[in-house]
Amino acid sequence: MSAAAGTATLPPWPRCDRTRAWGALAGHWQAHGRDLDLREAFARDPRRFESLSFAAPEVFADLSKNRIDLAAMRFLLDLARECGLESRRDAMLAGAVANATEGRAVLHTALRAPRGAATPFNAEVHAVLDAMLAFAEQVRERAARSGTGDADSLTDIVHIGIGGSDLGPAMAVRALEAFRHRRLRLHFVSNVDGHDIAPVLAALRPERTLVIVASKTFTTQETMANAAVARRWFVAGAPAGADIANHFVGVTTNLKAAAEFGITRTFGFWDWVGGRYSLWSAIGLPIAIAVGSAGFRELLAGARAMDEHFAGSPLEANLPVLLGLADLWNRNFHGYTSRCVAPYHQGLAHLPAYLQQLEMESNGKGVDLAGEPVPFATSPVVWGEPGTNGQHAFFQMLHQGTDVVPVEFIAVKRPAHEHPDLHAKLLANCLAQGQALMLGKSVDEAAAENVPTAAADLDCAVLARHRRFPGNRPSTTLVLDALTPRSLGALIALYEHRVWTSGALWNINSFDQWGVELGKALANRLLPRLDATVPGAKLGDAAGLDGSTAGLLRRLTST
Amino acid sequence: MSAAAGTATLPPWPRCDRTRAWGALAGHWQAHGRDLDLREAFARDPRRFESLSFAAPEVFADLSKNRIDLAAMRFLLDLARECGLESRRDAMLAGAVANATEGRAVLHTALRAPRGAATPFNAEVHAVLDAMLAFAEQVRERAARSGTGDADSLTDIVHIGIGGSDLGPAMAVRALEAFRHRRLRLHFVSNVDGHDIAPVLAALRPERTLVIVASKTFTTQETMANAAVARRWFVAGAPAGADIANHFVGVTTNLKAAAEFGITRTFGFWDWVGGRYSLWSAIGLPIAIAVGSAGFRELLAGARAMDEHFAGSPLEANLPVLLGLADLWNRNFHGYTSRCVAPYHQGLAHLPAYLQQLEMESNGKGVDLAGEPVPFATSPVVWGEPGTNGQHAFFQMLHQGTDVVPVEFIAVKRPAHEHPDLHAKLLANCLAQGQALMLGKSVDEAAAENVPTAAADLDCAVLARHRRFPGNRPSTTLVLDALTPRSLGALIALYEHRVWTSGALWNINSFDQWGVELGKALANRLLPRLDATVPGAKLGDAAGLDGSTAGLLRRLTST
Repeated sequence: MSAAAGTATLPPWPRCDRTRAWGALAGHWQAHGRDLDLREAFARDPRRFESLSFAAPEVFADLSKNRIDLAAMRFLLDLARECGLESRRDAMLAGAVANATEGRAVLHTALRAPRGAATPFNAEVHAVLDAMLAFAEQVRERAARSGTGDADSLTDIVHIGIGGSDLGPAMAVRALEAFRHRRLRLHFVSNVDGHDIAPVLAALRPERTLVIVASKTFTTQETMANAAVARRWFVAGAPAGADIANHFVGVTTNLKAAAEFGITRTFGFWDWVGGRYSLWSAIGLPIAIAVGSAGFRELLAGARAMDEHFAGSPLEANLPVLLGLADLWNRNFHGYTSRCVAPYHQGLAHLPAYLQQLEMESNGKGVDLAGEPVPFATSPVVWGEPGTNGQHAFFQMLHQGTDVVPVEFIAVKRPAHEHPDLHAKLLANCLAQGQALMLGKSVDEAAAENVPTAAADLDCAVLARHRRFPGNRPSTTLVLDALTPRSLGALIALYEHRVWTSGALWNINSFDQWGVELGKALANRLLPRLDATVPGAKLGDAAGLDGSTAGLLRRLTST
Repeated sequence: MSAAAGTATLPPWPRCDRTRAWGALAGHWQAHGRDLDLREAFARDPRRFESLSFAAPEVFADLSKNRIDLAAMRFLLDLARECGLESRRDAMLAGAVANATEGRAVLHTALRAPRGAATPFNAEVHAVLDAMLAFAEQVRERAARSGTGDADSLTDIVHIGIGGSDLGPAMAVRALEAFRHRRLRLHFVSNVDGHDIAPVLAALRPERTLVIVASKTFTTQETMANAAVARRWFVAGAPAGADIANHFVGVTTNLKAAAEFGITRTFGFWDWVGGRYSLWSAIGLPIAIAVGSAGFRELLAGARAMDEHFAGSPLEANLPVLLGLADLWNRNFHGYTSRCVAPYHQGLAHLPAYLQQLEMESNGKGVDLAGEPVPFATSPVVWGEPGTNGQHAFFQMLHQGTDVVPVEFIAVKRPAHEHPDLHAKLLANCLAQGQALMLGKSVDEAAAENVPTAAADLDCAVLARHRRFPGNRPSTTLVLDALTPRSLGALIALYEHRVWTSGALWNINSFDQWGVELGKALANRLLPRLDATVPGAKLGDAAGLDGSTAGLLRRLTST
């Protein structure tokens, strides 16, 4: 891959709201979208499920419980074509500059290409991957020797990183718990709050611990502060002869800073790997340590299979594109402001937090590629908790609250444990929630039930109104056969391309994050007012601050 | 406290939208709310911070970065008075039926009243509290003996419960990590997914473990399924002579079912303790075990101090009421659909999930007390992650996205660790984020900066538009001096009363949860189609189901 490809710019694409299809969609929504009743739609079309469910590698998706019809889907596909989605996708995959404001190609897909594929940077990618996986295997061998008295053995990994250098590895290691090396515990430290790292280190022995410091620039404030704490802890607690170089490893491109820290072994990546798309790179080292090199290659293979589906399937059968189109329909026409992600698998407990970054950092933008403010809504809030837990917490609001929140269920057919009765209950609940959201319960149905309540003086008709469910609330269900490295890879790649799809239609840059800069700059300006030990410190100095920041600062620094 | 008090009904209260104040608020929002610019508001009024920040026991709150002015606050206080908020509060605290659809009083505040207080059920409350705390101390003594070879010693607690029987204890134990008994590990199992309990038990020794089964009725599907797994694990793994009765304890009022399970020691509570308000009751047993009886009494004392503030302060200085009023203003006038909770303390990592239940289950209702559909929005989505982590994930969308999401920051002045430099960085970031949301950055300011980017061919003016922050985005900041049992108790009680305030103004029942019933019923009907071993099973039978549920069921049961 030549550098020249990296400087090619994309042709201008029409923004979604400036297409003919957009007008058609608006008209269709007025006539057949706003008042679409899911119960009627299923009654009218016995093949609705078949028409609106789709198979992709490792992932099956049922979109039929969304408030959409086949005509809307056709208009959405027209929209995609008018916006040049396919050629735009092809250009990105070929290494054109897809991150225009930073002048970078976007090539996390290249990380998933097999050795020898005609994808950009294939040789470099595999050189780093091979080295990283070889190191992961060494670590696993050191873990296998734990308890034998071997001076070099390991029991614990502490991964220090934040944002994309944390959420992906932490999510994946948790999801792949069933595949984890049994003699290794993995810990993730991210927050600059010392309450994050302190209890983790307090429970560990330095000479049995490997610390991974993951920061592309080796300057990320949180990560470097935590790395310094970990190094002090190691130096203070490790026996004589224990070497930092044998217990710290860097995932960074800043070899000089790493060497000054005492780290001699590093794994790098490239400017075309965005933080929130980086778990496939050396940032995935803790995943590789947890599940082994074969497992990590399976993760990549699953993502690659989804990449090929995304690159090669016609739009009508292209699951990431179809999900992205449905997202746009829900956001820009139905006007839903958030999406609840409810994975019915405890291993996916960190998935909502991972998806928050993937979607909200990618598409939480207010201007299009030309810098024009967009007149439509972009990224929704993405939030959620695993089912069945959520049912006992916030599902009340999803069923009976005044706002409609589309729910995304994720069901896994086969568990990795030996309790089939629990798994059947789990799946029954997952299906039942989507069913309940859609079907609802009328006041008459509620009144016909005999419900025990101590409210003796409450009119039965009033109580029935409290027990009514409006129904017609949309949901999507994704199904995996099992949660494995391969299926997880496919699932995450599916989400990546889906987020890209809505971002491309909105004509925003899904790959920059200028919105994080102002807070960083202001924090640096405030720090000398809160830390008496930094250069130029003026503890509690409120000069030049707004009244609120000044008042809070005084409160937090008063003695 | 006589039972008679429990049957008194509340007088009818006007719903917020049927008051004079509501009309005044609507007019005021048009004239001075919709376009309120925070930067101008601070410039205009040098005392804005002092006027819109408030102290309550253990908690200080800065509301001045909300898009509200003093006149709006006055109209909101008028609204509270027109809605009879004070007498309604007094009636609830005195034991009137505040949960009308279930005919129950709402008296979690009685759990926080000191011995001898003139609150309902005081003697019963303290009898159970004393017994529960004495047991917690016994458990702590058994833990203190771990490692001595004592056959009765304990190292691990597994708490099994879901919803209110899980979120409160799990949140509080995590928050009070610095106060935890150093020789005890506490584990929380809630999800019916076997991937939750299986890895927890796999790492433990039955004879060193105490299992708490928390279910008021001892029939909660998830909890009983997990309890059965735990009992099988205990029976299979414990040495001869180990007694279930010495290793399982129940928090339940169903003594018969507990005894059939093999549990002889139980702690009960009352029908006037709602699940999401129950951590103050015997449901708090794991908290008491973790922090000790003195710590648990401090937790109660902190909540009690907030109760007294809520009961006795004039509305103008009543923090839970003021927060509830601001919530209503943000929800019903500004139209914000979610609130992001960003605790700048890793120990509060579970707080957003806890608050999701507290607020969304309490106020996610669509009908008022009379059963009439309400014409305004009720509970928003509540979501969030600890800072600084969120900054590296979704804060991009909060700063530059198209929707406005109010953020609630929680800052803690003094840490419980020995890294003052990290704590200063944490607080600097917390203040900086609120500042950045409010101040924003204009295109001109962005253009004046020299920003490195590889996008050589990008027009500088275009890049500046990408780097613009609209600002004027609202936030609230809560400040604690330290995170202790007492301050946590006060903070949680603050949230309880705040949620009650908006619910009372909306005239909804914040204490029922009919919206969870339909999903449960449908899950029970689906279970025989997914589990071939239950009575009447018909595996994969899709008869009578909608097309989507039928299709998904077939997929999940195909062989």
